[in-house]
Amino acid sequence: TTTNVFWISLFQDVHVMIFIGFGFLMTFLKRYGFSSVGLNLLLAAFALQWGLIMQGLWHLEDGKIKVSIFKMINADFSTATVLISFGAVLGKTSPVQLLIMTILEITIFGINEHLVAEILGANDVGASMIIHAFGAYFGLAVARMLYRPALRNSHENDGSVYHSDLFAMIGTVFLWMFWPSFNSAIAESGTDQLMAVTNTYFSLAACVLSAYAVSSLVEHKGKLDMVHIQNATLAGGVAVGTCADMDIGPFGAMIIGFVAGIISTLGFKFLTPILASNLGIQDTCGVHNLHGMPGILGGIAGIVAVALGKKNGSAAMQGAALASSLGFALVGGTITGLIMKLPFWGQPPDQNCFDDSIYWEVII
Amino acid sequence: TTTNVFWISLFQDVHVMIFIGFGFLMTFLKRYGFSSVGLNLLLAAFALQWGLIMQGLWHLEDGKIKVSIFKMINADFSTATVLISFGAVLGKTSPVQLLIMTILEITIFGINEHLVAEILGANDVGASMIIHAFGAYFGLAVARMLYRPALRNSHENDGSVYHSDLFAMIGTVFLWMFWPSFNSAIAESGTDQLMAVTNTYFSLAACVLSAYAVSSLVEHKGKLDMVHIQNATLAGGVAVGTCADMDIGPFGAMIIGFVAGIISTLGFKFLTPILASNLGIQDTCGVHNLHGMPGILGGIAGIVAVALGKKNGSAAMQGAALASSLGFALVGGTITGLIMKLPFWGQPPDQNCFDDSIYWEVII
Amino acid sequence: TTTNVFWISLFQDVHVMIFIGFGFLMTFLKRYGFSSVGLNLLLAAFALQWGLIMQGLWHLEDGKIKVSIFKMINADFSTATVLISFGAVLGKTSPVQLLIMTILEITIFGINEHLVAEILGANDVGASMIIHAFGAYFGLAVARMLYRPALRNSHENDGSVYHSDLFAMIGTVFLWMFWPSFNSAIAESGTDQLMAVTNTYFSLAACVLSAYAVSSLVEHKGKLDMVHIQNATLAGGVAVGTCADMDIGPFGAMIIGFVAGIISTLGFKFLTPILASNLGIQDTCGVHNLHGMPGILGGIAGIVAVALGKKNGSAAMQGAALASSLGFALVGGTITGLIMKLPFWGQPPDQNCFDDSIYWEVII
Repeated sequence: TTTNVFWISLFQDVHVMIFIGFGFLMTFLKRYGFSSVGLNLLLAAFALQWGLIMQGLWHLEDGKIKVSIFKMINADFSTATVLISFGAVLGKTSPVQLLIMTILEITIFGINEHLVAEILGANDVGASMIIHAFGAYFGLAVARMLYRPALRNSHENDGSVYHSDLFAMIGTVFLWMFWPSFNSAIAESGTDQLMAVTNTYFSLAACVLSAYAVSSLVEHKGKLDMVHIQNATLAGGVAVGTCADMDIGPFGAMIIGFVAGIISTLGFKFLTPILASNLGIQDTCGVHNLHGMPGILGGIAGIVAVALGKKNGSAAMQGAALASSLGFALVGGTITGLIMKLPFWGQPPDQNCFDDSIYWEVII
Repeated sequence: TTTNVFWISLFQDVHVMIFIGFGFLMTFLKRYGFSSVGLNLLLAAFALQWGLIMQGLWHLEDGKIKVSIFKMINADFSTATVLISFGAVLGKTSPVQLLIMTILEITIFGINEHLVAEILGANDVGASMIIHAFGAYFGLAVARMLYRPALRNSHENDGSVYHSDLFAMIGTVFLWMFWPSFNSAIAESGTDQLMAVTNTYFSLAACVLSAYAVSSLVEHKGKLDMVHIQNATLAGGVAVGTCADMDIGPFGAMIIGFVAGIISTLGFKFLTPILASNLGIQDTCGVHNLHGMPGILGGIAGIVAVALGKKNGSAAMQGAALASSLGFALVGGTITGLIMKLPFWGQPPDQNCFDDSIYWEVII
Repeated sequence: TTTNVFWISLFQDVHVMIFIGFGFLMTFLKRYGFSSVGLNLLLAAFALQWGLIMQGLWHLEDGKIKVSIFKMINADFSTATVLISFGAVLGKTSPVQLLIMTILEITIFGINEHLVAEILGANDVGASMIIHAFGAYFGLAVARMLYRPALRNSHENDGSVYHSDLFAMIGTVFLWMFWPSFNSAIAESGTDQLMAVTNTYFSLAACVLSAYAVSSLVEHKGKLDMVHIQNATLAGGVAVGTCADMDIGPFGAMIIGFVAGIISTLGFKFLTPILASNLGIQDTCGVHNLHGMPGILGGIAGIVAVALGKKNGSAAMQGAALASSLGFALVGGTITGLIMKLPFWGQPPDQNCFDDSIYWEVII
């Protein structure tokens, strides 16, 4: 029962990341805070139920779906993929579209996870590949399908105000603090779990420094950009995920985090505008920079670490796991996006994007 | 000591519900946020001391009041009743009136709890009856005694603004996340406690879905109402309280939560206005919908579950416990309201209701 | 491993205090919220790494720096001193100046901690002396060195608005709730640790009552001042720190907390203006009232408690520990302040103090 007790405590930390962390991180939009935290609650409450069913079907016990704290943690994990994808299409989709995305994404997540963990036998304890990269590229594929040419020159509500940025920082800080629990929640008890905690802690600490440094370098007059701070400071948690329970040492973890902070900040500054204008991928929250590229970095770090013998496994299988996660994400996201594009799901018109008042009673 | 350690962790979760959860849930009022979170802190810090004394007097050890983590959890529980009642009279009472209410309500709570738990031997692990229904009807009885005819046509400050609703969502989400700890905090260690966690988790997840669905159904153009989302999504935690440690299964828990979400949302939409205009019960936070009716539903579910043999006990005693809780609440609240109505406690005049500036230095 | 598991849970609570607690407590300034929570994150992420190195150098194992949850808690502790000092100079320093302060302060903290704990063998489990008094007087000495005559008549941005005060209350309440974990995190497992939890709990509860009472007494018309509530309600956690694991009983703890709440509130009302106008110490957050005087009170309480035999130790050594902490703080802070005053660290000009827009891209 000690283990059970500890799992409940880890579960609570992950729960805080899902509901407070993701929910408030997305409240940065000036007129879309109700939807950010409110639809986050709706989607997550729905996703965890669907996630438990999907997971249960893969692991039937005597023909029944059994529930445990461990499975509740995994349900929160599958929920995370949906919330990452939600970030890519934030402000441009109806609740019904998002519920459809939830059903399809978690189903596809379940298939990929089974393949990666059971068939390929790959390591991904903190889920850089199967949650972060998967959720990001799934969401980006959906965003590509739902491309709105009218939003090319940015929408007046697609931005923050002073207090909405402070609400978003509640999300950032809770995600940052509890990420060690996320990356260690399904690690093997004992040394591995402890290592997952400390590796994530070091990666995140180093990531904050590089994110601040690069933000200041790329902005004029050396100023900091709140968007970078809210997001890129977390990239270290994403990128160290696959290696979290491997014996990479504090410096290994810090290098991963440091690089992730650089890549993520540069992505926000230079890549996001290009994706939007050249590829038609309008990524509202910049999930490509926080989850996509750092997730791939995490997958690659995992390949290298396994090749160096930091953990039992096969570098080839790690590579296959990364490819599988990206493949399922892009194909699954594209199909899901096409289904979401059908004209009867109540997609908001262009002028009502990023605006709570289309779905909420808002007193002005 | 493992149990001790786990209890400290549960205690912290309950503590977060009391101080952040209740405190921020009430910040939805546009000009009453200082009082909501500030008086919540004052009342709770006072109530937990008084609650420890009252509880200690019922359970003297060698003529002394002994303190333990278990008793600190129970003190937080008795505090919860006061904060629920606070919600009913929010904005219309002075700090002195509220301190008087705290003293009286916790004293009466102690009597009813002793009767329910020790004499009747009823089950109420998550306290649907002795905390939620008791606190709600106590507060409503007080509100009836303090009826203000001048506030019949709603007060200009009795409403929210955009950011105050986001502050309130901090409270909602923390309450939602940690409710499984609340309902399991005094359950028997082991299977019962684990069941209390998972039952509450399922009830809350189902409740979110029904609250959103009904909110959208009853508002025009299918929009969502922030008041419903802030409150009715939590009704599943209230309603599953009595049954939380009973073997009702995930589907039993989900049915309870689903029904609670419906009842609660309909209550906000249709019942609250009737209570205010016809019965003179001005329930600022709608505690009748979040704690009152779902608390009774929880009590009834407990009667049914015990009758079906889901837990040792007597359905008649469960019924008596519910009746006792309602009776003590209504009589106690009425007497307390009469005492609070005495003219020398600094009750705010009608035009200063729902306004921080009468009790706080506020810079405009 | 049970102990390990519990330490991770205590570590998380302390982490929340450092990143959410300190970060949001300082968001009370109307135009300095990005810097408060953002620079808090930067400084803390940097400080914990530097703190681990400093601590590791004092306790090398086989010539190596080893990491453990216990050391991560201690790193958060050394970080707390920096964040306290940050409060004294908030709004008047550049990020580079603050990073220099971090390096120097943690180094000096390490020397003083080693002296107090290892050489003097003094008790200071909750660190009233070595963190709170040290951090406060270090920061005040820095503030004295950085004195700005032009800010004598208060700056237009040196104040709060309604919503910034509510953001600050997020910090206050999280600090208040998790302080028992802070004071017990490095206590001996078992009875001592449990005592540290309950003593802190009682001290904080009593402190809230005296802070509210005195705030209402000293303000006109009996109103409450948000500054007092945000800060003085926490003084009980500071003051009971040294005695937290001593057998002082609930009433002993409550007396300490009660006195701390009085001293702290009176300090904000009467002493802070005098320090600013007569001594040239401009203490933005009033850390002298929350950490300085209550920290000294805690040190004195520790001397008395040890003299009364509540814990093994020597009252003289307790007194030497207090004197050492104050001495290192004042001398170290003065030297650090002189270094920070060098003209090439980008110190903001007077008119840009308390304003995010000098270091952040801010959309008006």
